[in-house]
Amino acid sequence: MAEIGPNTRLRTSPFYEATVMEGVTAFSPYNKMLMPVSYGDPAGEYGRLLNGVSLWDVGVQRQVQIEGPDAARLTQILCVRDMSNCFINQGKYVPMCDHQGALLNDPVVLKLDDNLFWLSIADNNMLMWARGIAAERGFDVKVTEPDVSPLAVQGPKAEDVVAAVFGDWVRTLKFFWFADAQIENIPLKIARSGYSKQGGFELYLCDGSRGTDLWNIMREAGAPWGIGPGNPSPVERIESGLLSYGGDTDNDTNPFEVRLDRYVNLDLDDEVIGIRALRRIREEGPKRHQLGVVLDDATPVPGHAIWYDVTADGRKVGSMTNGCWSPRLEALIGFVLISRDCKPGDRVEVLKHGTLMPGTLRELPFI
Amino acid sequence: MAEIGPNTRLRTSPFYEATVMEGVTAFSPYNKMLMPVSYGDPAGEYGRLLNGVSLWDVGVQRQVQIEGPDAARLTQILCVRDMSNCFINQGKYVPMCDHQGALLNDPVVLKLDDNLFWLSIADNNMLMWARGIAAERGFDVKVTEPDVSPLAVQGPKAEDVVAAVFGDWVRTLKFFWFADAQIENIPLKIARSGYSKQGGFELYLCDGSRGTDLWNIMREAGAPWGIGPGNPSPVERIESGLLSYGGDTDNDTNPFEVRLDRYVNLDLDDEVIGIRALRRIREEGPKRHQLGVVLDDATPVPGHAIWYDVTADGRKVGSMTNGCWSPRLEALIGFVLISRDCKPGDRVEVLKHGTLMPGTLRELPFI
Repeated sequence: MAEIGPNTRLRTSPFYEATVMEGVTAFSPYNKMLMPVSYGDPAGEYGRLLNGVSLWDVGVQRQVQIEGPDAARLTQILCVRDMSNCFINQGKYVPMCDHQGALLNDPVVLKLDDNLFWLSIADNNMLMWARGIAAERGFDVKVTEPDVSPLAVQGPKAEDVVAAVFGDWVRTLKFFWFADAQIENIPLKIARSGYSKQGGFELYLCDGSRGTDLWNIMREAGAPWGIGPGNPSPVERIESGLLSYGGDTDNDTNPFEVRLDRYVNLDLDDEVIGIRALRRIREEGPKRHQLGVVLDDATPVPGHAIWYDVTADGRKVGSMTNGCWSPRLEALIGFVLISRDCKPGDRVEVLKHGTLMPGTLRELPFI
Repeated sequence: MAEIGPNTRLRTSPFYEATVMEGVTAFSPYNKMLMPVSYGDPAGEYGRLLNGVSLWDVGVQRQVQIEGPDAARLTQILCVRDMSNCFINQGKYVPMCDHQGALLNDPVVLKLDDNLFWLSIADNNMLMWARGIAAERGFDVKVTEPDVSPLAVQGPKAEDVVAAVFGDWVRTLKFFWFADAQIENIPLKIARSGYSKQGGFELYLCDGSRGTDLWNIMREAGAPWGIGPGNPSPVERIESGLLSYGGDTDNDTNPFEVRLDRYVNLDLDDEVIGIRALRRIREEGPKRHQLGVVLDDATPVPGHAIWYDVTADGRKVGSMTNGCWSPRLEALIGFVLISRDCKPGDRVEVLKHGTLMPGTLRELPFI
């Protein structure tokens, strides 16, 4: 491992100082910002997420704000999922594609008002994309990046902690719905959401100068439940089958290849970007699909993998796009993006640093 | 400083293994790849660039390849500089803007053939942008990211080293021109270019499997001139007044604000993205400009700065966008992006971690 720190092209989040105080030991870049990815205690961090409550600086999940008379139309044109049935204060998980149907992002889209939306984005420049499409189509919208930075509270005890701070009303929030809130004059929005299957909330901080204050409030309120710092867990998300845009995808991956079929509405208007290409792909059948792989070798290894080639009978059939030791499965697992000819149960080999590691394909999620 | 390493969203360059062998100690992300930014000997690395020859893994400088019947037209539409006078085998440094005239990138555009161009890009997703605009305008082009990764040889002795490997003909290459070459069956293009003012070449490796081979060839050939590993030097580029896209710019910076006036041709066709906005900005006068600042405090500090507020008479007037100790000026220097009301010679204060550091504005470049 080598060093990384803030630089002129790599900004910090409003929670940066709090995470340094907590002893952050590793960062990964995301949307040209530093995202904490370790505090030096992987087992403790994983355990808190699975059994307790964990606090994550996910300020890198930037908002692309679309407002104005054409905001709803532009938002729909950028999204291949039907947004017409989205209520104010509701969010939806949405694939965004280019004109060839390749995935550009998988944000949660938050509808704040009939003419006001946030795309709460994964790692790609959707501000530029939304501005460009709006201008090409001559839409009357304003597209900006507001001062909004999410702090995630995740794990089975997250609801107790968030309720202790903001009141029991948060217990009634439905999945992906959100509401305005305030604590010690810090403006925020609370959503029931987050990048894990362990439940929890994202607190959308709406004043970047109050990051440390909000962190400390949650830290103190969560003490009775053993709250501690953490980060979007590569292990938990692999076990749970959650997609990582840009991690599990390449420049030409379409939503059907990575299990997002149910978030695509092919009967949307032709003006929606990518929808005609996706109809064609659906008709012809996508060439690849995403499956899980369980390697035969069951020796625990720290960290997680990068992209490796996958072969079957000596022929390359796809790529292993992530991998980790799963404490719950007690196995080395990962996702593969692989030819449709390969099916669950098939035997494959993963080529890792010159070594062929045999394994068996299976359906996702693992758990 | 915290740790960073390759992950599923952060790929390695073809020269990665060579740089690890060389003892790389720090990376910065760039175009979702790892760019080496230190080998642990800042003074030695700076000295080699200024007085000898330095070898840089700049594989992160990806190529966006535009080919097909409409390639020349799309390339011009993406660039606010006139490309009609660009010859085959010539490159040009070109601002790319959005429809509001905000800078999206400042690539070298290489014309490989009448219908084949590479945008050799700075840190932003220009593949997505070019594909999106091509589709919106219905152009007949294919836009891809080819297997091409530059290796820079920079410094006053670079020409001797490159000539020793490829022949004396490289000495006749004009600035930003390029030519096909080959060594030990490694296909590449050699351009006289690079992100420094010390002279040199970029070797565009066209076979990603041969990165270590090419590195070693240059390393051995350069031994008589004391070649060693290095990276695009923040210090040298600040002294020399070179722009860092994304480092010195924000989402709304236009080319006139950052000294790129001479690379903008306002009489280009209206269909060029951003040209109408730039005419309006030129007419109204840009609101900010980029100047240098020399701080009064002349204590050497390692590393370089992130963005700080700049005040004059207690009022915020702009931002200091980079900063470093300059060994040649023996001063703390940096760029400011600042109100047009502020002029060279004016006194300002830079707010660094709660401390006001007084300094004086001046023209760029420093050297």
